[in-house]
Amino acid sequence: MKTLLDDIELPTDLRRLQARQLPQVCAEVRQFLLNSVSKSSGHLASGLGTVELTVALHYVFNTPADKLVWDVGHQAYPHKILTGRKQQLHTIRQKDGLHPFPWAEESPYDVLSVGHSSTSISAALGLAVAAERRGSKEKTVAIIGDGAMTAGMAFEAMNHAGDIKPNMLVILNDNDMSISENVGALNRHFARLLSGKVYTSLREQGKKLLKPLPHIQNFASRAEEHMKGMMSPGTIFEELGFNYIGPIDGHDVEEVVEALTNMRDLSGPQLLHVVTQKGKGYRPAEDDPIGYHGVPKFDPKLSQLPSKPPGIPSYSDVFGQWLCDTADKDQLLMAITPAMREGSGMVNFSKQYPRQYFDVAIAEQHSVTYAAGLAIAGFKPVVAIYSTFLQRAYDQLIHDVALQNLDVLFAIDRAGIVGADGPTHQGAFDLSYLRCIPNMLVMTPGDEQECRDMLKTGYDYSGPAAVRYPRGAGTGCQLRSEDKKLEIGKSRTLVKGQQVALLNFGALLPECQQAAEQLDATLIDMRFVKPIDEQAIIEAAQTHSLLVTVEENVIQGGAGTAVLEVLARHHLQVKTLAIGLPDSFIKHGGQEEIRTELGLDAAAIIERIKASLD
Amino acid sequence: MKTLLDDIELPTDLRRLQARQLPQVCAEVRQFLLNSVSKSSGHLASGLGTVELTVALHYVFNTPADKLVWDVGHQAYPHKILTGRKQQLHTIRQKDGLHPFPWAEESPYDVLSVGHSSTSISAALGLAVAAERRGSKEKTVAIIGDGAMTAGMAFEAMNHAGDIKPNMLVILNDNDMSISENVGALNRHFARLLSGKVYTSLREQGKKLLKPLPHIQNFASRAEEHMKGMMSPGTIFEELGFNYIGPIDGHDVEEVVEALTNMRDLSGPQLLHVVTQKGKGYRPAEDDPIGYHGVPKFDPKLSQLPSKPPGIPSYSDVFGQWLCDTADKDQLLMAITPAMREGSGMVNFSKQYPRQYFDVAIAEQHSVTYAAGLAIAGFKPVVAIYSTFLQRAYDQLIHDVALQNLDVLFAIDRAGIVGADGPTHQGAFDLSYLRCIPNMLVMTPGDEQECRDMLKTGYDYSGPAAVRYPRGAGTGCQLRSEDKKLEIGKSRTLVKGQQVALLNFGALLPECQQAAEQLDATLIDMRFVKPIDEQAIIEAAQTHSLLVTVEENVIQGGAGTAVLEVLARHHLQVKTLAIGLPDSFIKHGGQEEIRTELGLDAAAIIERIKASLD
Repeated sequence: MKTLLDDIELPTDLRRLQARQLPQVCAEVRQFLLNSVSKSSGHLASGLGTVELTVALHYVFNTPADKLVWDVGHQAYPHKILTGRKQQLHTIRQKDGLHPFPWAEESPYDVLSVGHSSTSISAALGLAVAAERRGSKEKTVAIIGDGAMTAGMAFEAMNHAGDIKPNMLVILNDNDMSISENVGALNRHFARLLSGKVYTSLREQGKKLLKPLPHIQNFASRAEEHMKGMMSPGTIFEELGFNYIGPIDGHDVEEVVEALTNMRDLSGPQLLHVVTQKGKGYRPAEDDPIGYHGVPKFDPKLSQLPSKPPGIPSYSDVFGQWLCDTADKDQLLMAITPAMREGSGMVNFSKQYPRQYFDVAIAEQHSVTYAAGLAIAGFKPVVAIYSTFLQRAYDQLIHDVALQNLDVLFAIDRAGIVGADGPTHQGAFDLSYLRCIPNMLVMTPGDEQECRDMLKTGYDYSGPAAVRYPRGAGTGCQLRSEDKKLEIGKSRTLVKGQQVALLNFGALLPECQQAAEQLDATLIDMRFVKPIDEQAIIEAAQTHSLLVTVEENVIQGGAGTAVLEVLARHHLQVKTLAIGLPDSFIKHGGQEEIRTELGLDAAAIIERIKASLD
Repeated sequence: MKTLLDDIELPTDLRRLQARQLPQVCAEVRQFLLNSVSKSSGHLASGLGTVELTVALHYVFNTPADKLVWDVGHQAYPHKILTGRKQQLHTIRQKDGLHPFPWAEESPYDVLSVGHSSTSISAALGLAVAAERRGSKEKTVAIIGDGAMTAGMAFEAMNHAGDIKPNMLVILNDNDMSISENVGALNRHFARLLSGKVYTSLREQGKKLLKPLPHIQNFASRAEEHMKGMMSPGTIFEELGFNYIGPIDGHDVEEVVEALTNMRDLSGPQLLHVVTQKGKGYRPAEDDPIGYHGVPKFDPKLSQLPSKPPGIPSYSDVFGQWLCDTADKDQLLMAITPAMREGSGMVNFSKQYPRQYFDVAIAEQHSVTYAAGLAIAGFKPVVAIYSTFLQRAYDQLIHDVALQNLDVLFAIDRAGIVGADGPTHQGAFDLSYLRCIPNMLVMTPGDEQECRDMLKTGYDYSGPAAVRYPRGAGTGCQLRSEDKKLEIGKSRTLVKGQQVALLNFGALLPECQQAAEQLDATLIDMRFVKPIDEQAIIEAAQTHSLLVTVEENVIQGGAGTAVLEVLARHHLQVKTLAIGLPDSFIKHGGQEEIRTELGLDAAAIIERIKASLD
């Protein structure tokens, strides 16, 4: 039987339907999403939670002339389904397939390319001001989750919008959930208000507030809430200059359509508070929204995801285990994550050492300066953060940690190629942006044991230290019963060969080992990017005719460049070959696929070395 | 006659006095501050505004065991006066003198080293949690201005503190003023509430709230305010989980002492809202708090600062003029500053082109993504930002601008040595942290005309571009009537010499000219750090025996390193000498003094080149 969705290629098709047909469209979109993602893998629970909101937005707004700005983008699969990409949805996150998040180059409906959180209000404000300056009637809507709302830049954008008051709509998609569980006072506040009686009463009130002139009773009722020490969830937004409406039920598509229709033409900055449920409509995902946030291929008829095949532990797992082992002996350890407990391998740690664990919400800037405060007081903070998210705390790393030479250890996950998450998540720059900072110790492990040794070394080091390791499984190497503190700035020579010396920085060590073996080359595991082992470089230069540096970081300013600086300072003239990431943003695809494409596997390394020797 | 202040060397001396003697102490501190700063130059208006607050804090709290964390630090002169540094205050900001801001290495009373804004609550939270974990009764107090409160990281910290609720006190020093006038909805909200009747009524109420059990009338009165559409300024803090008290008069030292005494032992996160006046007690500074924010030497008996001697315009002035000239012809230009209108040379522009001017408050992250939104809509945003503050928006630059290849021009001021503001403000890293980003165009002008040419080139360029120029006066060169669009990635050879080739990147060009002349060396003004002029480097390497790169950026990953990368890629073997900033944080002092100390003047450059030739 033909479905309504079969006839919807673009939002114009959707807008031809009657409002009463929309619940059916929603059901079909939800089913389509579940079928597609369960076959392809990808982000599921967020999309299930935004089906009605997405349908309502494209129904009410004249997209793409009106602009929808999705925050982060995990939730944008229904949006892709309704904007001409239904048939490609099964390719999402795969090489040459649909981009994991909204992507401007992919569709005119994707206004802003995203991946990192909390950028939507800033960008939407720019779009809204632009529309106003042009005298255009185009509408601008930012859709942001309550998790993303905790980041400082969302607050900065609200504060600016409330000041200059352009016509724009911010939709707070409140599911009390980012990727992990939400934390933070603001979310606790939402949660309290949305639970039980208060929520119900506010919902009713929210509906009434949609009428142009709110009745005095509403205010009286709100005043009453204040008397009880409660506050409307909207107050904070009203203080920032927004007109707050809500909360409304985000799974009642007709209610959402009505709210959006009423709000579409209001002047000034508007905030609509929509309550949704992550995983909505698919029971297993409703019950375990974290588990179903990103899913492998699975059978939707079964009520659980296929269990992970037992395999080699990931670097994140290795880090998490090291944290537990260290906290077991040292109460001064304090581990901090900006809302990435699961991704950073910290679930066990958070349960076993709750007093030494801090999830600070999506707040990278704060996470680092908070660590600085702990370090000043003599504790030993460990900030667990992805390479690409540490970019959010760059000034805090410089100004609040390195400048004061504080004992903060950065455990930098997802360094190098990340795979399916694509350009926004590649950890391509950290060696360059860390290496220029005075006082920093920067280490790149070649296997899991070295990762543990380096974490120990950085932890014991007096001053700021970073260990950067990649996404995914390690080498499966045997772990020693004791970790070893490394000599600062000292490499280890693994193979003595001739003519060619491979200088490895990090997790491409197995590739380098293959290359060294095949070429009878020297292989030095450099270990430290900063301070770098000058003596090893000098000796290698004096005894080889080609030095090859290998790293998963851009060449510009990276570890290989550090080697060039040493050679130049010592006036050593030797041929070099720099293997690393290109000077361009790297697309999504399988981690190994992308490595191969970029010439980072053993075969390509060997080939490039041979070409350099000619 | 001996004053009370004469006997105050440390806070313990202060704490021996009666509370009723404190107004006299305040008067003396204020007079001392005015006398000292008017003779030495430095930050004045902020300190005048915090005299009573500082005296009260050291009187009530058991410093340094109890921790005072000052935000930014412009306001910390009275704190330095009361904590053993009275006699050195006249050396502040001078080489080997007192540090311009609180500085941990300088005094045990300076808990956190600062300079950038909005870090205090994060660090204080770390200190407070640490005290709690240790079972210590030490108190932690963060003192933050309402300007600094607009930055996202302050919000992130409040959100976290409100969640985990340690014992800590945040003092909001509300003077409706950061360095420029404050902007943003939050501040507008404060201002509205603090003006006229509402303020008065709230003040009374604030006093009452100091009592442990607030009367129901207070709530009733607040409810009434809500009915009128007004809100207590504290609501936003209460929503974030803080217990809000205030506003109180920050110039009534006994009132402040009483409030602090009452609050000192309260449990959980507390916020005290103190209203102060920047410049308080010195009429000219009260009337012109922006003018008296940072002052040269002046006669306090005169009611105005000495007029700036007419001199060579600064690079900031050149930028400001270029903005005006360009906006005059192009309505698509939109100029954005994160609260640095004066410092960035944008005062005239803001007055002449108010519809094209945006001060987004202290909100670097938002400033960049807001620019991205404008660029997506086809406008031509220019973000004016200091090198060291752009570190705050590093991820936004990568993720929201460069990744989407948007037309945003970054006018990066205060690149290189800044002088008296010291380590927190040195623009030492931007070439390194920008050069690794794909799609970026990075330019370094050697004089004012080149600065204008580069601004034009970057503005017309399709994609993200940066022009980085130093603090202070340019070369005084004659400006052309028309700016020239430069060929992308093309250097210009100024002098053809032999043996030595100087490759200059930026404002040390005059020094390089002297060196080239004296050494009969080739001088190439490289202009572009990215893309770099490979052909010029290859030719220079083939025709000279020494290449000297000169830049005001750290060597690690900087422009000189870009030259090494080119040489390596082309297998060119030539001796090189990298002149730039050291791999350490650079102290404060006169701009020229520090350059000389670091070997960046012509004499030192010549000497180092000669040594390299030996």
